Amino acid sequence: MVDVCLLGTGGMMPLPERWLSSLLVRCNGRMMLIDCGEGTQIPMKMAGWGFKNLDAILITHYHADHVAGLPGLLLTLANSGRQEPVRLIGPPGLAEVVSGLLTIAPGLPYPIYLYTCPADGISHLEMDGLLIRCFPVDHWIPCLAYSIELRRPGRFDAEKARELDIPVRYWKQLQKGETVEWKGRSFRPDQVMGEPRRGIKICYCTDTRPVDGLCDFVREADLLVCEGMYGDEGDAEKAILKKHMLFAEAARVAREAGVCELWLTHFSPALACPEDWLSHAKEVFEPTIAGHDLMRKTLTFPS
Amino acid sequence: MVDVCLLGTGGMMPLPERWLSSLLVRCNGRMMLIDCGEGTQIPMKMAGWGFKNLDAILITHYHADHVAGLPGLLLTLANSGRQEPVRLIGPPGLAEVVSGLLTIAPGLPYPIYLYTCPADGISHLEMDGLLIRCFPVDHWIPCLAYSIELRRPGRFDAEKARELDIPVRYWKQLQKGETVEWKGRSFRPDQVMGEPRRGIKICYCTDTRPVDGLCDFVREADLLVCEGMYGDEGDAEKAILKKHMLFAEAARVAREAGVCELWLTHFSPALACPEDWLSHAKEVFEPTIAGHDLMRKTLTFPS
Repeated sequence: MVDVCLLGTGGMMPLPERWLSSLLVRCNGRMMLIDCGEGTQIPMKMAGWGFKNLDAILITHYHADHVAGLPGLLLTLANSGRQEPVRLIGPPGLAEVVSGLLTIAPGLPYPIYLYTCPADGISHLEMDGLLIRCFPVDHWIPCLAYSIELRRPGRFDAEKARELDIPVRYWKQLQKGETVEWKGRSFRPDQVMGEPRRGIKICYCTDTRPVDGLCDFVREADLLVCEGMYGDEGDAEKAILKKHMLFAEAARVAREAGVCELWLTHFSPALACPEDWLSHAKEVFEPTIAGHDLMRKTLTFPS
Repeated sequence: MVDVCLLGTGGMMPLPERWLSSLLVRCNGRMMLIDCGEGTQIPMKMAGWGFKNLDAILITHYHADHVAGLPGLLLTLANSGRQEPVRLIGPPGLAEVVSGLLTIAPGLPYPIYLYTCPADGISHLEMDGLLIRCFPVDHWIPCLAYSIELRRPGRFDAEKARELDIPVRYWKQLQKGETVEWKGRSFRPDQVMGEPRRGIKICYCTDTRPVDGLCDFVREADLLVCEGMYGDEGDAEKAILKKHMLFAEAARVAREAGVCELWLTHFSPALACPEDWLSHAKEVFEPTIAGHDLMRKTLTFPS
């Protein structure tokens, strides 16, 4: 089971009625956050999931509306009593940006680990039982889309385990994917586990143009949270110029990738009511929702 | 005439119902801001005075709750079309902090001028017709209280000007404090102007303990905006330890300095309803108000 909460849906600057775009993901009580613009700690407090269990902050790129909230959030984490390391993940430039921002948040009571992702390929990271992958997209500066997956192993074949004479006390280890040594014999998970089953995949993609390989990267996601900076097709040129997407462009990515559901986010401050333009996306991909601040969903394994 | 708007009243971290402490001051259409914590640009937008005419940002000290909103605000100023220089004023360390924060706000379309104030004495600066003074207070790191004054010249003595045969077309120059040369003769303002009259003085003081010299610095201010981190006298030890003030301590400064009005601000996040503790200040200094976000006032010359 994975819970997600879209903390904000704005682009460029925080507004009185709209926090900056950011996604909080929770699994087994542990949390990770994608993007942390100015003020993100406020809707995070409103979400009510606490701060202390935040293990990682994934940054798409280093424009202020995606990262300026970092020092404040790190200090609030400190106030929450956190002492375990916090992982910061982002494209090249991470060390410079973090060191610049920590000028105003010195002496944190926990270590910070930096994972700089390459700007030119997919990279993988395993954390809190989740697989984090990132993919370079097309913006003014290096920018990453993220995918967070909770994988689901195949079904355990108890019949086979009994046939192989594996004591019941070792079954859990095999189910967790570990090899078991017992009385000089060795048992591998693949001897008793079926094919891996469909897990849960959540993707987050902003700020970018629709780019080659993006559909493959978000393929069959249960939830794609994707930017829709502009609703009106009349803004197509502006979208190209500023390297953002129209609602309809995000919807085409969702349709071609065969995702289950699309949430639009990162709306232009000029877009007062994103719902007004939603039909432009729904014509292309029906299961599209115009994101709103603090919108949440629990994703479970398909039965 | 000077307008002030208390944008926020919180200390430590921005809350869903309370912005971080910050004061916006407007005179003759130009503005200056004291402190810029995370999210300050949001209540500034709500205040409705625009962004473009913001000429200076005065920072009391470099804790994140007073300065983390700087990169976002500077970018929003850029979006407002500003091209004139913006002055940043603060205690020693200004250049390092600004250069750290500008990592995420590169390429601003206007120049930034830095004025680093000494950490150990009063310094003066004239801007937008206002006199800005700062005074070192007592916190964990170098921290300044600020005073902003609109001075008022003496009354112009038309009788005397006529006696001296000064042509009417030069009267305005003399009223503005300039010397006039005419037909080989020289006229000084002090020949036609009375004693300077009481102007308007606004002081802003956070985060600090009550400190020697503070009363003199804020003496007879029309408005003192001062921190009151804790309301309960039971928090006296905590206030000493964390270098903050109780409501009653701020009230004692106001009374001893003979200010006209005291606004309390920079409340602890634990102080859900500052009004509940207001009587502790009012017993000491009756004209005390518990500040609230977006509280505003227009100060005029006494008639």
